[in-house]
Amino acid sequence: MPTSTSVLAIENKMISENGVQQVELLNGVEDLYGGIIIDIEEAMESEAFTFSLSASVLQWKQQGKRAVWIKLHIQLVNLVEPSVKEGFRYHHAEPDYLMLVNWISDSTSTIPENASHRVGIGAFIVNEKREVLVVQENNGKFKGKGVWKFPTGVVNEGEDISIAAIREVKEETGIDTEFVEVLAFRQSHRSYFTKSDLFFVCMLRPLTFYIQKQDTEIKAAQWMPFNEYAAQPFVQKHDAFSSVADVCLTKLETEYVGFSPVPRTTASGKTSHLYLSRRDLNNLAPEHGQSEFPG
Amino acid sequence: MPTSTSVLAIENKMISENGVQQVELLNGVEDLYGGIIIDIEEAMESEAFTFSLSASVLQWKQQGKRAVWIKLHIQLVNLVEPSVKEGFRYHHAEPDYLMLVNWISDSTSTIPENASHRVGIGAFIVNEKREVLVVQENNGKFKGKGVWKFPTGVVNEGEDISIAAIREVKEETGIDTEFVEVLAFRQSHRSYFTKSDLFFVCMLRPLTFYIQKQDTEIKAAQWMPFNEYAAQPFVQKHDAFSSVADVCLTKLETEYVGFSPVPRTTASGKTSHLYLSRRDLNNLAPEHGQSEFPG
Repeated sequence: MPTSTSVLAIENKMISENGVQQVELLNGVEDLYGGIIIDIEEAMESEAFTFSLSASVLQWKQQGKRAVWIKLHIQLVNLVEPSVKEGFRYHHAEPDYLMLVNWISDSTSTIPENASHRVGIGAFIVNEKREVLVVQENNGKFKGKGVWKFPTGVVNEGEDISIAAIREVKEETGIDTEFVEVLAFRQSHRSYFTKSDLFFVCMLRPLTFYIQKQDTEIKAAQWMPFNEYAAQPFVQKHDAFSSVADVCLTKLETEYVGFSPVPRTTASGKTSHLYLSRRDLNNLAPEHGQSEFPG
Repeated sequence: MPTSTSVLAIENKMISENGVQQVELLNGVEDLYGGIIIDIEEAMESEAFTFSLSASVLQWKQQGKRAVWIKLHIQLVNLVEPSVKEGFRYHHAEPDYLMLVNWISDSTSTIPENASHRVGIGAFIVNEKREVLVVQENNGKFKGKGVWKFPTGVVNEGEDISIAAIREVKEETGIDTEFVEVLAFRQSHRSYFTKSDLFFVCMLRPLTFYIQKQDTEIKAAQWMPFNEYAAQPFVQKHDAFSSVADVCLTKLETEYVGFSPVPRTTASGKTSHLYLSRRDLNNLAPEHGQSEFPG
């Protein structure tokens, strides 16, 4: 509904062009950055939507808003084309919705970047016989090559790295584990289409030892002597793998300290996990530090 | 063009329903995972596209393909609705294109996850007087609160963490730096809509000292005694910040070893960066290790 003289003027314009049609403004929620978020919940006809969107954007412009977001459930796919024709661009998409955005201010756009990275984990798990838990996969680039590799998997949106590592190992091999630390991580680019990839090598401690492999993704799983794992031509040939094997060997033979997670509260009051070298942090004399990092 | 009897049958069906229209199959490129990627380059009418898509998907199904991807440039927004009506779902979007996908096999979907994380950096930079480089921002949640914080920024798709840190510091403050190491990282969730966030605390060594701040994003920038930075009520109050200050203080006062990047080649032949504790890795006797990690 109209809330200012200028919008009334727009509405009148729409009416005169459009016979008797009444232009309803869209409902928007303000964000913290001078933007408006429209979340359309009910089906609308494209034409009515176009008029409402156009009038609403004009009003928000006059109010000094900087950006307008539209979240369209996939059932409202008929509104994608009208939104783009009104100057909106895609921001991100998930299977069931598309988010569009329009920077309506004259100032430089500060539209936040879309998610740019997929996050994966590889799990280094050793039993008391110094055997490492390894798998062969049914799909992907290692398919049919006889390569034994650490269990790996994708960290879901909203999932902690440590939880993802435990979950993937359980899913692929049936082994229960507890998280120890991140030994290293790798950043690579163009992993899937244009997206980048962050891959965390995690050490986990096994709590059970009997393997029950998952059949869809995993061709075979076993406990393998670490030296046999590291001696595979595949590992030797690619230094991204041989270096990780070196890190793991250092962890087994001498001393290697990775980053372990401590729960911390951010400025927004959310719980997050800070991964750091806990051993080194304990070097700090207690009178200096404000926090405790129990071993 | 038709390549099998079954497709000819489809084509005939289309013709009979459609008068004289010839159904051209869409061009698709195979991926490594039993999928087909369609990259439409020229404008098409929705109706012709629907017929072609339907016939093409049927053919690929018969060929045992598992997934069909459609990449639609934003100029081809008229083809989004027909794709969805043919059973496609959104996979991801960037400002100028939308990627849709349809799992056409009876087996369990192995469609790869969309990028789930934004990646950010915070830069810890100290000069010889033990002053830390800090900024106040014009926007965001710290706006107008007088909080001095490390320069921060977003790592772009395809950009190395270390390069992003150097770039952001240069953009915001004009200071040239070289990358030292990742001191810690933090994972948090629902940072922007449903996306998660990985934030890397990076230590950089300053190469220049004269500050020229960027005006749009940065309200103020200065070198500030480290103890003053750490004593800010804001830092003290939120343990996500006080813990990072502890890590930085440990780095300054005793010994703290983070993860430093080494370039490594992956199995696909791509260069990536592996971040690890180089000090600890040097504990490994040389006869065991296959790689060298010069200090």
